[in-house]
Amino acid sequence: MTSLTDLLDGRWGAVRRDIRAQVADTKFRDPYGLGVEEHRAQVLEQLHELAGTGRNRLGFPVEYGGGGDIGGSIVSFEMLGFGDLSLMVKAGVQWGLFGGAVQLLGTRPHHERYLRNIMDLQLPGCFAMTETGHGSDVQHLRTTATYDPAAREFVIDTPDVQARKDYIGNAARDGRMAVVFAQLVTGSERRGVHAFVVPSRDEDGNALPGVRIEDCGPKAGLNGVDNGRLTFEQVRVPRDALLNRYGDVAEDGTYTSPIDSDSRRFFTMLGTLVRGRVSVAGSAGSATKRALTIAIRYAERRRQFFRPGDGEEVVVLDYLAHQRKLLPALATTYALHFAQEELVTSLHELQSADEVDEQRQRELESRAAGLKAVATWHATNAIQTAREACGGAGYLSENILPSLKADTDVFTTFEGDNTVLLQLVAKGLLTSYKDHFEDLSPLATARFVAEQFVGAVIERTAARQVVERIVDASPGRDDDDALFDRAWQCKLFEDREAHVLDGVARRLRQATAANAFEVFNDAQDHVLRAGRVHVDRLVLEAFVAAIDRCEDGEAKDLLSRVCDLYVLANVEADRAWFLEHGRLTSSRAKAVTAAVNDLCRELRPHARTLVDAFAIPEQFLAAPILAED
Amino acid sequence: MTSLTDLLDGRWGAVRRDIRAQVADTKFRDPYGLGVEEHRAQVLEQLHELAGTGRNRLGFPVEYGGGGDIGGSIVSFEMLGFGDLSLMVKAGVQWGLFGGAVQLLGTRPHHERYLRNIMDLQLPGCFAMTETGHGSDVQHLRTTATYDPAAREFVIDTPDVQARKDYIGNAARDGRMAVVFAQLVTGSERRGVHAFVVPSRDEDGNALPGVRIEDCGPKAGLNGVDNGRLTFEQVRVPRDALLNRYGDVAEDGTYTSPIDSDSRRFFTMLGTLVRGRVSVAGSAGSATKRALTIAIRYAERRRQFFRPGDGEEVVVLDYLAHQRKLLPALATTYALHFAQEELVTSLHELQSADEVDEQRQRELESRAAGLKAVATWHATNAIQTAREACGGAGYLSENILPSLKADTDVFTTFEGDNTVLLQLVAKGLLTSYKDHFEDLSPLATARFVAEQFVGAVIERTAARQVVERIVDASPGRDDDDALFDRAWQCKLFEDREAHVLDGVARRLRQATAANAFEVFNDAQDHVLRAGRVHVDRLVLEAFVAAIDRCEDGEAKDLLSRVCDLYVLANVEADRAWFLEHGRLTSSRAKAVTAAVNDLCRELRPHARTLVDAFAIPEQFLAAPILAED
Repeated sequence: MTSLTDLLDGRWGAVRRDIRAQVADTKFRDPYGLGVEEHRAQVLEQLHELAGTGRNRLGFPVEYGGGGDIGGSIVSFEMLGFGDLSLMVKAGVQWGLFGGAVQLLGTRPHHERYLRNIMDLQLPGCFAMTETGHGSDVQHLRTTATYDPAAREFVIDTPDVQARKDYIGNAARDGRMAVVFAQLVTGSERRGVHAFVVPSRDEDGNALPGVRIEDCGPKAGLNGVDNGRLTFEQVRVPRDALLNRYGDVAEDGTYTSPIDSDSRRFFTMLGTLVRGRVSVAGSAGSATKRALTIAIRYAERRRQFFRPGDGEEVVVLDYLAHQRKLLPALATTYALHFAQEELVTSLHELQSADEVDEQRQRELESRAAGLKAVATWHATNAIQTAREACGGAGYLSENILPSLKADTDVFTTFEGDNTVLLQLVAKGLLTSYKDHFEDLSPLATARFVAEQFVGAVIERTAARQVVERIVDASPGRDDDDALFDRAWQCKLFEDREAHVLDGVARRLRQATAANAFEVFNDAQDHVLRAGRVHVDRLVLEAFVAAIDRCEDGEAKDLLSRVCDLYVLANVEADRAWFLEHGRLTSSRAKAVTAAVNDLCRELRPHARTLVDAFAIPEQFLAAPILAED
Repeated sequence: MTSLTDLLDGRWGAVRRDIRAQVADTKFRDPYGLGVEEHRAQVLEQLHELAGTGRNRLGFPVEYGGGGDIGGSIVSFEMLGFGDLSLMVKAGVQWGLFGGAVQLLGTRPHHERYLRNIMDLQLPGCFAMTETGHGSDVQHLRTTATYDPAAREFVIDTPDVQARKDYIGNAARDGRMAVVFAQLVTGSERRGVHAFVVPSRDEDGNALPGVRIEDCGPKAGLNGVDNGRLTFEQVRVPRDALLNRYGDVAEDGTYTSPIDSDSRRFFTMLGTLVRGRVSVAGSAGSATKRALTIAIRYAERRRQFFRPGDGEEVVVLDYLAHQRKLLPALATTYALHFAQEELVTSLHELQSADEVDEQRQRELESRAAGLKAVATWHATNAIQTAREACGGAGYLSENILPSLKADTDVFTTFEGDNTVLLQLVAKGLLTSYKDHFEDLSPLATARFVAEQFVGAVIERTAARQVVERIVDASPGRDDDDALFDRAWQCKLFEDREAHVLDGVARRLRQATAANAFEVFNDAQDHVLRAGRVHVDRLVLEAFVAAIDRCEDGEAKDLLSRVCDLYVLANVEADRAWFLEHGRLTSSRAKAVTAAVNDLCRELRPHARTLVDAFAIPEQFLAAPILAED
């Protein structure tokens, strides 16, 4: 259904179509069967090819030869998610994290010196933030960068093994330089975490003096990415190695910054790097689409067990249990796609604007964190389900699902551990944290959070306006058909979010300075839930807005049913809460389960249409289980 | 806690202790970093070493040099689950499936000819049941074995690609012979599926004439097992290649069998092979224990984020969210362990008895199917959670979790797809199927099932008597402390099972001959749920009986809390049902969630004790993340 593909392609449809055309002209080299070193070599070669397509330049400024199209750049990473995910991650490290850090944390001299070489891969680099001992709590990294005013140099040092940089992509084999995050010390004062460009290898690929490079070795997946460990032994870099947009050190060692608070400065720096999380959410979506497309196409041809009476074997997608495995997951994938599109649009507009809108930037970070968590957990679950739905065939590497599962597995814990991210979302909702950056850490005192509870939970998104129009136009109903009433659905999600948040706030308000940790920790499951239901509401609203944009009646009707399935499967999974809080009666809750079954049956004939609308290039679906005999 | 280990070790404690001692004397060769062919070679070598230990002989009859200890044999497979799971599977194929089929489907001449060579690995073999087109519905396999009375031979033939044997362990590289399941045809009459011993390779390892052997290639995991595809082109084998315990063909082609119905005969044959499912459930448990041990030990040393006020970083297992990920999973692992022990005991007693007790045999098959499904899904979820709980470190192959995840992934769909198995459990409960083997297929007419609904849901297990004693002795209570009252818990599980089954039976009763498939299919989620809650009840009862056996007061108290957590986490996950059916009030349901949190806090200091009680040999826990710096 072309109109469905057009709607899914959205604002960056031209970028998507260009990529599909480019991909159609090349042969996809699946890494199936390659050893770790061969795989790494292939991915590097593909990365160089990608550098020739121009897609790598999309996110960089026009004045340095970039495309100046931030949204297009994110969509291009998302499209890489249909292929070998090692290439997506390696590209993300080079152009998103490494290049992005130089671009967004550096200033003109850094841009002039590095950006072109980064774009064309003359300078392969790393993003060295995570340490062995600190992954989530990056504010407390322990690598130091001590300014030596006599030499006008910084001394980068790894004090012990827990402070070595770990899991760093591009480090073990190819990276020549790293953006290293370290505690800046000048005049014996600590100024918090800053980023430095530190060469790690010479032209011949040898580690530079004082830099120890280790290989993290084989991983569960993504073996085309050379993750490594970096240890710095008193490595000296010039003063201008500091990426100094948010903090600078003068020749005499004087520190200056436009942002006073160390903590607020650091989170501002982190905030500029939000593209990484948005890209992970997007490519998790692509991998999920690929897995579901394979599983649904297979389920349409695989037959098992005879139907009593007629001597025909039943197509497995005709079984309710099989539909229940795949179709709600497909509906959620649609919902997340539209939420992702909305997130990319916000990101594009914010980062393309001349003025920084701090409030919207915080909202963007929160939504990126939340959507990343929800989308990557969904990927983990849906790809697992797709594998199981294909039985033994799904376990063979040739049928693609094993690499999708293994490669995406780390998505739930890299670029921010999902549990920590959902907590950040909740705290963002609970805190008017614009002026209180010190309190962003997940262990911020609970009392503070509770006192600052602002109540203004429902922020304004573009989709929000569509939802309000629909809710306002609805007569309001409370019969069984209400389950399919979009206004009722939206209000149900809103009400859940408001109530959960309200409950969390009340619990945290009991905290005193002495028991802050205990009160917060006792409510941690409740806090996480607040983050989760907030994201669910945003996702639904994005879906509703997308349906509203759809101009093709047939596509619109189909999407509307898919949206019903997304909503009702979500409500079904969470119906204990709705029952406990008097939002659903027992009979209505049972009706939700029945409605999910009905929707599965109703959508089953459209399953193929729905996966084909993703328009995944066929070369990425060349699994033998889908081949004709 | 020694007494806890003793209780866990149970009836076959001596076997477990022997294996631990044997293992301690050898160096564990982890397959980490090996290519597929190296891994296969290593596993074959290890298999030969295993053949020298005598553990391989445990399940075979004493008269052929076996150990005559069926339970000990299963426990020995379970213990293999602590190491490289490829070795466990390869051993399972050789001695469990291949050897077991010759032993249990063959007669004295087969035993005399083959059993010794199978035991000492002189004759490596395969179990060739699954075909490309038929995995779950093995009654409709399409390989044929046509008797030629002139030559007194069977002709084994693969009619087309969908009928080739697929995913067959030991086939691609090492197997010399296969037990091939095929439709027996004699005198142009089809007699249903029978098993034949068919040589596949000569002494030099070359495929024999007419046998085509293909390699399934790399898989998601278990790459030390050489899975392959076998195609037979008019391969002739002598008349005595038929494993003729349940059906025989005379020289003139006359067919005889002690069981008239083709279908009933086939399911009787399948039933004797129940050991495979029991072993999979057991080794899934071992892999789960290993994953949770790694994750919990790591969570006790890993710190992240400072506690407000005191300048100490918080140990991650102190976070409620982390406890909630790992401790209910640990409690469920305990529960499943005791259910497994009970299952092994039943299997041992039944298969060691001289007389076949058909009713108990059917119950055993049903419980093996159900426990296999529940234990392997639990493994998939718990190992996934353990990986995520270790963050990036959990993604590195050196830290073991990636191979645990990848290797166990197929457990949910091999040795019976879990969805199909749970359906079998439910149908077993609904049907007095002793006399109606024709109706065992998952698409048995729903009307028949409903008419036969026997109501006698709660069969007698050994554990059942303990539960009845506890329930009888309980005064019966309905206050909030009831949540921790074992009698109340047992009755809650029982009542749920009876009610769900009753509901399914009522729905299926509406079926007519014309709409049987539709009625059954519409209720499929309900049917699966019936199987699931039945297994949950059996698991709880096994746990209760184990606590009852425990003679050490301290261990007993601890186990009792673990059992509470198992029960209440199960109830929490399913509390929507309890609410919908008026079994819990809203406030009681909320109290369940609070109780799970309380139990997590209460058990947190004992987490290490609980995982150490599994007594996993330390060499299997040599992950660098657990090493001292």
